[in-house]
Amino acid sequence: MIYLDNAATTPPCTEAVERARAFLEENFYNPSAIYGGAFSVHAALKEARQGVLSRIADPAKFELIFTSGGTESDNHAVFSGARRGNAVTTKGEHAAVFESFNALKGRGVEPRFAPLKCDGSVDEEGLLSLVDEKTSLVSILHVNNETGAVNDILALARAVKRKNPRALFHSDGVQAFGKIPVRLSADIDLYSVSAHKIGGLKGTGALIKRKNLVLPPLVYGGGQEGGQRSGTENVFGIMAFAYAAEKKFATLEEDGKRILALRNLLRERLDGALYTCLSPEVGSPYILSTSARGMRGEVLVRMLWERGVAAGTGSACSSRHRFSRVLMACGYDEPTLDGVLRWSFSPATTKDEILRAADIANEVAATFRGNL
Amino acid sequence: MIYLDNAATTPPCTEAVERARAFLEENFYNPSAIYGGAFSVHAALKEARQGVLSRIADPAKFELIFTSGGTESDNHAVFSGARRGNAVTTKGEHAAVFESFNALKGRGVEPRFAPLKCDGSVDEEGLLSLVDEKTSLVSILHVNNETGAVNDILALARAVKRKNPRALFHSDGVQAFGKIPVRLSADIDLYSVSAHKIGGLKGTGALIKRKNLVLPPLVYGGGQEGGQRSGTENVFGIMAFAYAAEKKFATLEEDGKRILALRNLLRERLDGALYTCLSPEVGSPYILSTSARGMRGEVLVRMLWERGVAAGTGSACSSRHRFSRVLMACGYDEPTLDGVLRWSFSPATTKDEILRAADIANEVAATFRGNL
Repeated sequence: MIYLDNAATTPPCTEAVERARAFLEENFYNPSAIYGGAFSVHAALKEARQGVLSRIADPAKFELIFTSGGTESDNHAVFSGARRGNAVTTKGEHAAVFESFNALKGRGVEPRFAPLKCDGSVDEEGLLSLVDEKTSLVSILHVNNETGAVNDILALARAVKRKNPRALFHSDGVQAFGKIPVRLSADIDLYSVSAHKIGGLKGTGALIKRKNLVLPPLVYGGGQEGGQRSGTENVFGIMAFAYAAEKKFATLEEDGKRILALRNLLRERLDGALYTCLSPEVGSPYILSTSARGMRGEVLVRMLWERGVAAGTGSACSSRHRFSRVLMACGYDEPTLDGVLRWSFSPATTKDEILRAADIANEVAATFRGNL
Repeated sequence: MIYLDNAATTPPCTEAVERARAFLEENFYNPSAIYGGAFSVHAALKEARQGVLSRIADPAKFELIFTSGGTESDNHAVFSGARRGNAVTTKGEHAAVFESFNALKGRGVEPRFAPLKCDGSVDEEGLLSLVDEKTSLVSILHVNNETGAVNDILALARAVKRKNPRALFHSDGVQAFGKIPVRLSADIDLYSVSAHKIGGLKGTGALIKRKNLVLPPLVYGGGQEGGQRSGTENVFGIMAFAYAAEKKFATLEEDGKRILALRNLLRERLDGALYTCLSPEVGSPYILSTSARGMRGEVLVRMLWERGVAAGTGSACSSRHRFSRVLMACGYDEPTLDGVLRWSFSPATTKDEILRAADIANEVAATFRGNL
């Protein structure tokens, strides 16, 4: 199997899982208990927290709340951050932010959606025109999970704060964390990350928060995570996340260069008469969005699978809808939207896999077209 | 190590973890993806859902939403169920319900807290006097996690519905699921369960919901769990939960009898001059709450740990407070509250462990008293 759907989920990193295994076995204690074994689990969580946080932010200025995943982190940021006036996001957001914004209406907060450029990045002018003195939260995707377009969140946060210094700035960093080099600036208040996109496990993520920013929890209870996210900690998932992050960040730069070359190779090898590239030239190396215009992406995905290649049609989380809401907002027409195939990579992806996948993709689309 | 803190968390069931291991390895796919490998993960989740649900409810009348744990399930039930008027719970609730109720004030819903009897069960008359035509939700703990007292939730739900048929009835079943035989009746609208109290993993739980009951989600996004709980499913945790539940329920009745005998044996063997029993005679076999009156429970816990016994002082989730809020509501005085030790059992607990633990507990308390 040539697995090119790493933006949907990555295979768990074997080394991270094995290192975390002790927390399923002898170190299974509840970290809130008050005896030696539990203290050592608690200490391991503390170290994991610092480890994950320090990869992208200064632990003197930021703190990290472990959550059940990127979706919960996004919900926490949106519902706790947007509590009055209006809140501004983009039409390119993942459903976790987009649907949370839609739900703000019922809570007396007006959601506003900024337009996209055709590559899926936000139109900065359009965005800033929506920010006013009543804006309580601005949320901008770091890396678009469908096209791989990268928003310059540091510059956008600065521009937002210039317009309204009291507005909070959140970014969904799920497709950026461990892939795109970034250090959070003082203009970023909240940043969501996920474990299972970088070799960790499904069911673990984190919300990174500027210190001294006091927000209500999304989940109340026993006061874990400094009272900011209650519930017995998913110790195994958290430890595997920390180990996976350690491994991923160690080679972030070199992985990025190698994967960029693979992405570009795939783009070149895909038959231009069959496939159009939707991703920007300069974007995340990890995602290549293409369209076999006039064909049906989900049929191609199944044909590819039968020939040993796993790819996606866009966001796995939006697979219930025929057309991608995000790519519609980019301005593509229906035949293009129908034919979308998203290829996404990991450090384990090899050149040989890319060459074989391109051949199979060309074959499959030619067959499909022949049958039309 | 003699582990008698199973109400805080249980060691993961080795067999369940091994069976679920494939979902960390070859079956790692995102269940929302649209190719063969993902479909089989999706099918496994569906089977797990029916498996867990059918243990305690009729799948024709109830459905099950996987969550990140008992705390999230409780929050979901409280915040989605209590949206107007008042909401009634007890002073004996786990923090996940209790603190959610406290947070209802900020959302325009009046929280009401019913008194307890001295064993930790709810005072039924006191409870019903708080329910009126404006009550939108009633939430009653099934098994008190500190004393082991069992509330007859079927009878309580019936009585609540007689008083207000429109009030929703929720029960936190975290310490009951897999331990106390129950089938949910039509009067129960919502029921929370957790995996890691029965050999599953931390980070997984479920909210069981009466079919046709439409509630807003707590977590919005890609529409997983029928739109009721978004976020990529924690597949490994869910599968381990299903396997652990399968195993636990297979021997629920015989485990209950054997563990009841062990609980009673421990109670007999603890020196009556040192320990008072706080648990009711008829309660969960899995929990025995005692007090070494006038001593400090947390000191005893550490002394026990040094001698190879793990026990708790009450709810691990409330270990930040000197006195247990729940036991205070039961009416105990401070010297009794100070000395609380909670012993909690699992099917793995042996008679020999109980005998040794009792001897060590007697020794430790005698030493403590001698040093006073």
